[in-house]
Formats: sequence, structure tokens, C-alpha cells
Amino acid sequence: MDYALIMAGGGGTRLWPLSRRQAPKQQLPLVEARSMFHVTVERLYPLIPAERIFVVTNAEAARVFQHQVPALPPGNYILEPSAKDSGPAAALGLVHIARRDPDATVAVLPADHHISNVPAFLAALQAAQEVARWGYIVTLGIQPSCPATGFGYIEQGEPIGSAHGLTIYRALRFTEKPSLEVAQQYLASGRHVWNSGMFIMTCVVGLAEFERQQPNFAQALRALSDAIGTPRYSAALAEAWEAAPRLSLDYAIMEGAERMAVIPVEIGWSDIGNWDALLAVLPKDHDGNALSGDVLAVDTHGVLVRGSDRLIVTLGLHDVIIVDTPDALLVCARDRAADLKQVVDQLRALGREEVL
Amino acid sequence: MDYALIMAGGGGTRLWPLSRRQAPKQQLPLVEARSMFHVTVERLYPLIPAERIFVVTNAEAARVFQHQVPALPPGNYILEPSAKDSGPAAALGLVHIARRDPDATVAVLPADHHISNVPAFLAALQAAQEVARWGYIVTLGIQPSCPATGFGYIEQGEPIGSAHGLTIYRALRFTEKPSLEVAQQYLASGRHVWNSGMFIMTCVVGLAEFERQQPNFAQALRALSDAIGTPRYSAALAEAWEAAPRLSLDYAIMEGAERMAVIPVEIGWSDIGNWDALLAVLPKDHDGNALSGDVLAVDTHGVLVRGSDRLIVTLGLHDVIIVDTPDALLVCARDRAADLKQVVDQLRALGREEVL
Repeated sequence: MDYALIMAGGGGTRLWPLSRRQAPKQQLPLVEARSMFHVTVERLYPLIPAERIFVVTNAEAARVFQHQVPALPPGNYILEPSAKDSGPAAALGLVHIARRDPDATVAVLPADHHISNVPAFLAALQAAQEVARWGYIVTLGIQPSCPATGFGYIEQGEPIGSAHGLTIYRALRFTEKPSLEVAQQYLASGRHVWNSGMFIMTCVVGLAEFERQQPNFAQALRALSDAIGTPRYSAALAEAWEAAPRLSLDYAIMEGAERMAVIPVEIGWSDIGNWDALLAVLPKDHDGNALSGDVLAVDTHGVLVRGSDRLIVTLGLHDVIIVDTPDALLVCARDRAADLKQVVDQLRALGREEVL
Repeated sequence: MDYALIMAGGGGTRLWPLSRRQAPKQQLPLVEARSMFHVTVERLYPLIPAERIFVVTNAEAARVFQHQVPALPPGNYILEPSAKDSGPAAALGLVHIARRDPDATVAVLPADHHISNVPAFLAALQAAQEVARWGYIVTLGIQPSCPATGFGYIEQGEPIGSAHGLTIYRALRFTEKPSLEVAQQYLASGRHVWNSGMFIMTCVVGLAEFERQQPNFAQALRALSDAIGTPRYSAALAEAWEAAPRLSLDYAIMEGAERMAVIPVEIGWSDIGNWDALLAVLPKDHDGNALSGDVLAVDTHGVLVRGSDRLIVTLGLHDVIIVDTPDALLVCARDRAADLKQVVDQLRALGREEVL
């Protein structure tokens, strides 16, 4: 792969109270001792050296990441003026990389996903790079293990070739998070995979889709591209951001792209979308617990404890998540972990900004 | 009743982490806004004025209680040199009260019990006072509502009279905490009540039982009695304490007493022996929760939250106890609350004295 473009500007409340506005998930050491962002960068090194790993994020987060990953050149951080979802963020990154090399292949990657099988992931990236050179936008599709309703799905069409031992399919349709019934049909069909949010393309092809599908924004992007390295850059960025649609990358170009391919992969992927998903990927003791901090767990099974410096005693607990931070404590049934987002929305509605 | 003698020197770990060595249960506001000790004193006022309410405790606890209940005269605190269980503590108190009035009736009462029906309790005390004047040691027996294995039981013998509308029975036998099987037999018999640990007697009769059953200690108590109000008091107390058996009041004299009576009472009694017992007596919301502190409870039922100043969010929880303190957090299944004592013992064995 020529370049990586890591999308690291997101917020998110699904791992509250550990993740906050000031400390979103990608900045946190969740699965390993290093932050999710740090792990995301390091797993690319066999394929892409640090100088070709770019990051789109905000200025505040960039400072945190520079501290966490000193190997990344400071110039590789491309700063968004404000959060405008992943569509504009990806376009901004593509514009910068295209100035260096319009034909470069770029892997647009989330900063906060877990991948346990890194060799398989890197092989998939190499296959995707080849397909991107055929003129496709390629997405990595995750073989579904259950009828999940928390992911988008991609319907596979006919095979269009193979690369690095993987079969490549035309991508027919993107679907947003389905109902359980629809998800079960997808699972039974054998032709649907989860949308991982990882996209591989050449700059030319990606920007051409913005031209075709988001023409106003694309015009501002051309002006922005011309302004790179000039005193006009800030003004051009502000104008581009003014014109930018508040859309995810999926909505902005993927769902309507002309030549979309999907590679079904088995790479031990998780988006760590909630505390229960984190427990699933963490190493566990023989009672199925993942305990961190100063914890005494007695007759406790299937429990995640994320402690800080206080002693935490659990007694007779099953399938519960406990997350202890200095100013907020969460105690949550595992099977309700996916509903935490609504509870955090409730806190926001209650005006509890100080804990968000 | 002439006097009350409140036994307030105990420790206890069954409400950890709120109760600590430095803050035992009777010092804490558990059911009401005032401490258990404070409530224990105030519920006696209709029958016994403050100047005749005596307290046996240690010096450190006495300072806390004086602050909590300024109405109690400082001279009414009788200080134990060290904790030697309730037998010696009660004897020490009886010696002091007997110096004022040997024929006085005294209600020896725990400092940390909850009583919801105070009028019934006061009527029972008046009945007990009458029976104490007949020469009996009287105990209030709690009508058992279940085959509890956490209480001692008293077997009722034949009725020996009635007073204040209550029937008085001879007390045949004290039994320590029974097995479930035995407890079920007791419940079925209709002749067994729980030992509330509340005893009413005259000083003369109580001290006579110490003379008969603990003669060495009683000899030292006589010397102590003579030393009250003299410079020899401290030395005499030290000697008496040296001779004191480390026994509960039950073991020291009640189980072998010559004339024991029991009054079965229904006074809404609880010893608040664990967190689940506390939840049982607390007012609850329509989901059966008792929440204190800064709590957002979503789809939460039958949960006790005892918070401090941090935000606590619960989601999808059932029948769980959460007790949050600055240096320790407990999350416990309700049906395991009675086993907390063992866990605290484990903390002690692990050398975690700083949280005990």
C-alpha cells in the first residue's frame, strides 16, 4: 500500500465513562497497553512506513497522538477545522495525499478498531491495493458470525477476480443497520458481509467520486488543493469546510460509487462498539472475567472490571460491566451494553456535560 | 424503665465499605439522616430521659457520639479500656448504674438496631420492666418471619404472666445460629423466637448472675464498684478488664441464668445485619430501588445504591448492591450480601488494613 489515511477525529460515547469528549476511544489503551490509535498505526508498519501514514483529526487530538506515537511525522497530521463526519475528513486527506501522488493507493482506516489476525489483515490490504489499481474502490467486508443489528451490511455480487489468495466480489449494495429479521436473512444468504469502514482506493478514483456525487464540495476541494503550501490554505480550508456536506464516507461516495469491490476477510475484527464487545476480545481468567485495577472478585463470572486506583470488591456477580473513573461509575448488565449510548444521551439531555 | 444501657463499642464489617473500624455501623446514618446510635437514643426518650441513658463504648467512639447527640451528658459515657465483647461491657455498665441505684431496672440495648414500630417497642420495654421487677432477666424475642440462620433463637416455655397486653414466657433455652433444617423446625414449632440481644433486668439480678457464673470477674467488679469516684478507679478498671472473660452477654450470663423470661414482640425489628437487610427497611421507588447519591438508574430493579459524590449510572441491573466510598467500591449480588463478612476477612488476610 502506498499510503494510509487514519480517520482519528471521532468522538463517541459507547465506552463511557472511560471515553469522553476529551478522551475518545482511539486515544485510550483498551485492548493493549498502547492506545487504539497507536496499535492501529503500528500494525501497518510492515506494509507502510510512518512517513506515509497520514492522520485526519482535530488539533487537540493531534497533540495527544503525537505524544503517543512520536514516530509519526508532525506534518502527517491533517487538521479538520471542526468535526463534519468521515466524508469530508476522508476527502481532505485524499486531497493532501493526491498533491504528492495522484495515483497513489490509499487505505482509509478507522483509528479505533481491533484486529487480532494482523497477517491476514495485511494480506487483505495487499489484495485490496491490487484491486484499487484496477480502478475500484475496495472495502474489506467482515464475514458475519451472528445476525448483528449494530453494523451496516454489504451485499456481494459476482466475483471479479482474486488477489493474494482472496476472492474479490463486486459490491452490489450498502445497507444501514438492519432489523433483526433482515439481518437473519442476510446471514442465511451467505452473500452479505459487515461493512468494516475500511476502504482502499487510488486518490484519483476517490476524488473522482466526490466530483461526481458531491460537486459543490469537490469544487472547493480543488481550490483547497491549489492552496496547499500557500498562505491561502487556511481560508481555502474554511471555504471547503463551509461547502462540506455533513455525511459519512459511506453516504458521501461509497453507496453511489460506480466501481465498488468487496473482499470478504477473516481477520479477527471488532469495532469494540461497546463494553461487552471489549470483554469479548480481552484475555479472560478461568471464570471469564477481565479485571483491571485493584480488584478482589469473589464468586464472580463473566464480569468486566475496568478500575482506577480504588479497591473494587465484587461478590456473586454474573455478566456485569463495572467501569470506575474518578468522577463517574458505570455498573451495567452485559446484555445491555449496546444501550449505553441512549443513557449517555440522557445525561446530555440532563445537562451533565461535566461528565461527558 | 429506670435506665438504658446502650452497648455501642462494637466494630463490624457487615456493611463494608461504608462501615470501617474507624466508623462502625452505629455511627452511620443508615436508615435515617441521623446515625443508628442517635436514633437508638431518641426512640427511648418517651420512656427514659437523657440523663438516665448510659453508653458503654470506647473513648474514640464516645467523642463521635457526643458530637452526634449533644443532649446526652458526657458523664453517661462509660469507657471500656479495650473491646472485650458484650459480657464485660454490660457488667461494667451495670456496676456504674448500681452505684446510683442497685434496684434500678436497666434495658441493655444494642446501638445499631432498626425498630419501625416504636410505640410497640416502648410498650414491650414497659412490660419487660414489670417482669424484671419480679426478679427475671427479660429478653425481647422477635417473632420469626422466615427460617433465618443468621440469628440466635430462644425457646419459649410456659407463660408466666402478662403485662401491658403482652404474654410473658419462661425462656427455656438459647440456641446459637442454627442450620437451615433446625431453623425450619424452630419456625414450625411456633415456640422459638429470634434473640434480639435486648435484655431488661434489675442491676441486682444482673450482677448476681455474674457473681454466680463469672466469680473471678465478679470479684474484680466489686473492687471496681468501690473505686468509682476515687483515684483508684483507673487501676481497678484495668484489673477488672484483666479478669474479664471475652464473652458475649448471652454466653456470660444469659444462657445459664436462673430466671429468664422472654416476651415475643412484633416491633418491626431488624439488626441491619447486611446490605440486603438494609435495603429491606429502606423506602424504595416503584422499581424497588433505594438510591442515594448522584445516581441515574435506567431499567434497574431491586437495587441499593449508596453513593458518595461521584455520578453513578446503572443500566439493566437487577438485585445488586452498589456501595461507593472514596477509596473502595462494593458491587454485590443481593443474595450474597450475607457473605460479605468472609470477603472482608479475606481483605484482612491480604493485609489490606488501609480499607478496613
